[in-house]
Amino acid sequence: MNIHMLDKYAKSLIKQAAIQIRSSFSEELIIESKSEANDLVTNIDKETEKFFIRHIKSDFPDHRIFGEEGFGDKIDNLDGYVWMLDPIDGTTNFIHFKKNFAISLGIYKDGEGIFGYIYNVMDDDLISAAQGQGAYLNDVRIPMLEKASVEKSIIGVNASWVIPNKFVQHDQMIELMQTARGTRSFGSAAIEIAYVATGRLDAYMSMRLSPWDIAGGMVVAKEVGAIVTTLSNEPINLLKQNSFIVSKPNLHEQLLSKYIILK
Amino acid sequence: MNIHMLDKYAKSLIKQAAIQIRSSFSEELIIESKSEANDLVTNIDKETEKFFIRHIKSDFPDHRIFGEEGFGDKIDNLDGYVWMLDPIDGTTNFIHFKKNFAISLGIYKDGEGIFGYIYNVMDDDLISAAQGQGAYLNDVRIPMLEKASVEKSIIGVNASWVIPNKFVQHDQMIELMQTARGTRSFGSAAIEIAYVATGRLDAYMSMRLSPWDIAGGMVVAKEVGAIVTTLSNEPINLLKQNSFIVSKPNLHEQLLSKYIILK
Repeated sequence: MNIHMLDKYAKSLIKQAAIQIRSSFSEELIIESKSEANDLVTNIDKETEKFFIRHIKSDFPDHRIFGEEGFGDKIDNLDGYVWMLDPIDGTTNFIHFKKNFAISLGIYKDGEGIFGYIYNVMDDDLISAAQGQGAYLNDVRIPMLEKASVEKSIIGVNASWVIPNKFVQHDQMIELMQTARGTRSFGSAAIEIAYVATGRLDAYMSMRLSPWDIAGGMVVAKEVGAIVTTLSNEPINLLKQNSFIVSKPNLHEQLLSKYIILK
Repeated sequence: MNIHMLDKYAKSLIKQAAIQIRSSFSEELIIESKSEANDLVTNIDKETEKFFIRHIKSDFPDHRIFGEEGFGDKIDNLDGYVWMLDPIDGTTNFIHFKKNFAISLGIYKDGEGIFGYIYNVMDDDLISAAQGQGAYLNDVRIPMLEKASVEKSIIGVNASWVIPNKFVQHDQMIELMQTARGTRSFGSAAIEIAYVATGRLDAYMSMRLSPWDIAGGMVVAKEVGAIVTTLSNEPINLLKQNSFIVSKPNLHEQLLSKYIILK
């Protein structure tokens, strides 16, 4: 298949996968725990990843797939085309809420993000971006982000990072909670990155995310002028887990210089 | 107007108000702070409350209205019919997110909740309940809630209640964060109560809510078997601010006996 078709092809796969996910609500879910008791996976996460892999391997045999459920390739470099896929980002929401989960996909070429997608399956909202060509919510161009002050910002952060934890000094996080206008927590990194990209949240942070959680969102974020780094202000390494912040540009500096102190 | 029309009448008012709220996104919002810097109000909150009052006063002249924006009646008792209205619950979401806000309405007769409504304006999801007649999501009956353990529960709670605060012992809240499957925070009490009623969240709590935030949700919660009390396990007093918990029945007891210790 012609590489110029890649964007349309990826969107079509996402929409097809979503139809299958939605129809799964009429069947019984098989829920398992992964490494930790609250790290859940269902048969639908697995079937969705396999659906993507089957099509990509057939139509782009030299492309590799780095997927959350591990049915893709073993990835230790980003040479050539790599699809980074979370078939259901926010599996706990998928199970408990039956909404607020997303298909998250980034297509990278030699380590550069060329296409990014975050599809909120139940809201039917597709955020997409192509490198250098802007980001879109469905077919509407998303404007570049404007500045925000900490005092007027809404920050996406889970309460678990505000209590004593092994990643970050919680005293400064408490100060951030007391300074910002508010905090929200939706339980899906991809959706929270999408909310930053569309200006709904001013920043979103997490102490530990995997490449497939953020690869699609990183392409989108770049196209609207958001800054993405680790919480120690380093570039994201898409071969391993990272701490993560995506933020309006001026806010990124304020948050990292004053409020987010790693242990 | 005949009192038997009340349910249809209230739903129709809510839907009409929502159309006006949605159309307001094409105009510039006028945003003001109330008592606290982050307690925001817009011209649309005010206009929506006035819209309700104008109609109710015209069609039910002996009914009183207890509304967040203060254009209704001064209420120091619950005699007769009282409409408790938050025209936009989640005003910060209305401003920042342009979604995740609700019209919250409870109609009480001599202190008894007879109708409750939570309308998620942008999702077009209306939760409604009539005393003794069950609760509905749009036209679909909401099943009675099932049991949940703390370990498998998703709790709606804002990070601000997990840090040192003047209402609750935060050490036990930290333990709750570490025990529960997860926490979420959506920034609208009405929507979070609706999520408990539909089984998406297992419990939701806040340290300080006003009657109009919860009056509609309380009618809904009762119809699906949720328990609503203050955080000191007392009945809610709809004439003042209260601490608040709505929860699956067995979980309510576990949360209050072990994790929520008021100061």
